[in-house]
Amino acid sequence: MKAQNAVIGQSGGPTAVINQSLVGIVEGLRQARGHDRVGQVLGAHHAVDGIVAGDFIPLHEVPQERLDRIAQTPSAALGSSRSKPDEAFCERILDAFERHDVRYFFYIGGNDSSDTCRIVAEKAQAKGYDLRAIHVPKTIDNDLVCNDHTPGFGSAAKFVAQAFIGDNLDNRALPGIKINVIMGRHAGFLTAASTLGRHGADDGPHLVYVPEADFDIDRFKSDVESVYRRLGRCLIAVSEGIHDRDGTPMAAKLAESVEKDSHGNVQLSGTGALGDYLADALKDHFAAKGEKARVRADTFGYLQRCFAGCVSDTDAQEARRAGHVAAEHALQGVTSGSIAIQRTSTTPYRVEYKLIPISDVAAKTRTLDPAYIKSGNDIDPSYHDYLAPLVGPLPTVELLRLR
Amino acid sequence: MKAQNAVIGQSGGPTAVINQSLVGIVEGLRQARGHDRVGQVLGAHHAVDGIVAGDFIPLHEVPQERLDRIAQTPSAALGSSRSKPDEAFCERILDAFERHDVRYFFYIGGNDSSDTCRIVAEKAQAKGYDLRAIHVPKTIDNDLVCNDHTPGFGSAAKFVAQAFIGDNLDNRALPGIKINVIMGRHAGFLTAASTLGRHGADDGPHLVYVPEADFDIDRFKSDVESVYRRLGRCLIAVSEGIHDRDGTPMAAKLAESVEKDSHGNVQLSGTGALGDYLADALKDHFAAKGEKARVRADTFGYLQRCFAGCVSDTDAQEARRAGHVAAEHALQGVTSGSIAIQRTSTTPYRVEYKLIPISDVAAKTRTLDPAYIKSGNDIDPSYHDYLAPLVGPLPTVELLRLR
Repeated sequence: MKAQNAVIGQSGGPTAVINQSLVGIVEGLRQARGHDRVGQVLGAHHAVDGIVAGDFIPLHEVPQERLDRIAQTPSAALGSSRSKPDEAFCERILDAFERHDVRYFFYIGGNDSSDTCRIVAEKAQAKGYDLRAIHVPKTIDNDLVCNDHTPGFGSAAKFVAQAFIGDNLDNRALPGIKINVIMGRHAGFLTAASTLGRHGADDGPHLVYVPEADFDIDRFKSDVESVYRRLGRCLIAVSEGIHDRDGTPMAAKLAESVEKDSHGNVQLSGTGALGDYLADALKDHFAAKGEKARVRADTFGYLQRCFAGCVSDTDAQEARRAGHVAAEHALQGVTSGSIAIQRTSTTPYRVEYKLIPISDVAAKTRTLDPAYIKSGNDIDPSYHDYLAPLVGPLPTVELLRLR
Repeated sequence: MKAQNAVIGQSGGPTAVINQSLVGIVEGLRQARGHDRVGQVLGAHHAVDGIVAGDFIPLHEVPQERLDRIAQTPSAALGSSRSKPDEAFCERILDAFERHDVRYFFYIGGNDSSDTCRIVAEKAQAKGYDLRAIHVPKTIDNDLVCNDHTPGFGSAAKFVAQAFIGDNLDNRALPGIKINVIMGRHAGFLTAASTLGRHGADDGPHLVYVPEADFDIDRFKSDVESVYRRLGRCLIAVSEGIHDRDGTPMAAKLAESVEKDSHGNVQLSGTGALGDYLADALKDHFAAKGEKARVRADTFGYLQRCFAGCVSDTDAQEARRAGHVAAEHALQGVTSGSIAIQRTSTTPYRVEYKLIPISDVAAKTRTLDPAYIKSGNDIDPSYHDYLAPLVGPLPTVELLRLR
C-alpha cells in the first residue's frame, strides 16, 4: 500500500492557542488506532500557499517535548496565509495532494478557511480521490455557527477583560472619557468581553457598542454625556465593525481611500482612525457646550490575538482537544467534517466535540444573541455566565472607595 | 502631645504596582519603631486636590488582608491628579496639613510629583512647621535620575515585551510591515523593552526608534525598506515622543490644534495619529515604487501602565519595599528626601534603597544611556542585562522553522 500522508494547515488571523490545535492533531495522529496507516505528517508552510508550492515542514518526527513548547507558543507556528482560494486554486491544492500522496487534510481556521476545506473535500469526492478533510475551528471573533465558542476566543476575551479591568481603574484614578476599540467585524463577542471584569455598579465599561446594533453618532454622544454627567468619567467599549443603519461601517466612512483585503473586506484593524474619529466627535460635542472634555482613544489592535502570557487554560485545553478529536475522526475514515465545540452544561462547565458537516459552518457568520445586547449600548449581565468559564479566573481587584 | 497625622498621596499616571507602595507606607508606619507617635494615616483622595479639599480616606484601620488585596490591584487606589501645584497651591497644601495636624507627608509619583513634594517641604522648613516629607518613586517611563529604575517600569516593560513576543510571532505568520507606538515622551526605556523577547537574529522588533535619537522620516523609510527586502516583513517599535532634529515632536506636527495638558505637554497618548501617520508614509513610499505594501500600526496606549495580570514580581516587591523604607526614614525623623532604588549587583540581582535629597531628583529627566542606542534605529543587546531582572521570566517561545 502506498504511503498516506497528512497535511495540516493554519489559516487566517493567528490566535494564542492555534498551535495547541496543531499539536493536538499531530498527537492524535500518533496515538489513535489506525495511526500506522499514516506516513508523513506535513505542516503546510503558510497554509494553502505552502500546499501548492510544495513547501512543507515535517512534523511526524518532532519530539513530544518540543511539541509541548510549540503548543504553548502563540501565533501560527506553520505560518498563515491571507489567500482566499477560489475553485481554480482549490484544484491546485488537490493536485498537490495527489502529487504528495496526501490522504488526510486538516485545516485550522475560521469560516473562510472552513469554506476552503469544504471546496477541496467536494472536489476530491467529485474526482473520486480518497481524502479525509477535517476543519478544526479557530477564531478570536467567536463567529462560527454550530459552535458554543471557538478556540482562540477565550484567550482574546481574557486579554480584553484584563485590559478593561486595568483601564477602568486607570480611568477611575484619573477621570475622563476613554474609548477603547476592540476587534470584531461582524460579531461583538470580544467587545462584550470588556464587561467581564465589572463588579460594582459604577465600573466600566459604561457603554458598549457592538456590530449587532446599528450605531448612531448622535445617540453615542448623548449616551456618553449622560454617563459623564453622572459619574464624572466614562469608559466605552466599541467594536471596530460598528456601522450605521444602512450597514456602512463607520471605519469605511473615515478613510479617503479605503484599503481592502483579499476577501474584499475594508481594513478595520491596524489603524487608530475609528477611535480618533469618535474621540474628536466627543471633544467637539462638549466644546459646542463651552466645555473642554478630556477624551482619549486606544485601539487594542493585534495585541488581542497573540499576546504572550495571557492565555485561558480552558481555551488552551479545548484547542488541543479539538485537534485530537479531528485526528481521531479522520483515522476512523470520516471523509469530511468540521469539529464543533458544543456546551452541554454551564454548572459544572462541560463541552462535547461534535463532528458536523463542513457546509453547516463554512462561510457563515454567527453573531451575538440579541438577548445579550441591552438597550443598544450595553451588554446584559447574563453574558457573564456564558463567558466566565471560557476565560477562567481574573486578577484580584480591591477598592478603597466606591467612587 | 498633639496627634501627628500622616498623609499619603498618589500622583500622575497610575501604574500596576503603585498600590504596593501605598500599602508599603501604611505597613511601614504600623511596624516601624516610633509608630505610636503617628495618629491617623490618611489617604489623599485624588492627590493634592484631595489634600486642599480635606478629602481623605482613612487607612490606619484597614485590615492587613484587605491591604494585601489593594496592593495587588493596579492603578491608584486613592485616585490620582493631573494638577501641577505652583507655589500658591503648595501654600494651600501646607495650610491643610496644619489644619489636620499632618506631620508626615508621603508622595508617590514621578519627577513632577517629587517637585511638589520638594516645594511643600521647603515651605514647611521656611515656616518652621515640623514636617517630614518623603517622595516615593513611581513611573513607567523610568525617567527619574539617581535611580537604577523606578517602580512601575518593570511591569510596563513586561507588558511591552510580551506584546512584542506575540506580535513578532503574528507578523512572522502573516508577514507585513507593522508599527507599534509605545509610551515615552522623553525617555526610550519602555520602547527599548520591546527587544527583551528577541531570541533569533530575525526576531522583531527589527527597528527601534527612541526619543533620545533624532527621528528622520526619510531615514525611517529607507531603514524599513531595507529590512522588508531582506526578511519580507518588518516589525517596528516607536516611542510616542520621537522628534526631529529641531526637537519638535512628530506628534506635534500632526495635529492641527494640538492639545496640551496642565504641564504644558503636547498630547501624545490616547490617539493613533502618530502610528497612522508613519503607516501612511510607508504606504506612500512603496506606492511610489509601484508596490502595495501591507502596513499596519498599533498604539499600545494606556494599556501599558495598568493592565491587570501582567505584573513583574520584582517590580511589585520593590514598590512595596520602597514604601516601607520611606516610612522608616520618616519615623526616624528625616525632614525630607526621596527614596532611590540603586542596583548594587546584576548577578545576582541586588538593589538598595537610598535616601537622597528631593532636589536631586525633582523636575529632572533621566534618559536612556547612549551606549544602549545602536545606530539610531536599534537597541544594544547589553540592555537585556539591565532589563531582564526587572521584568522576570517571559513566556516560552518555540519555533518550527526560523523564517
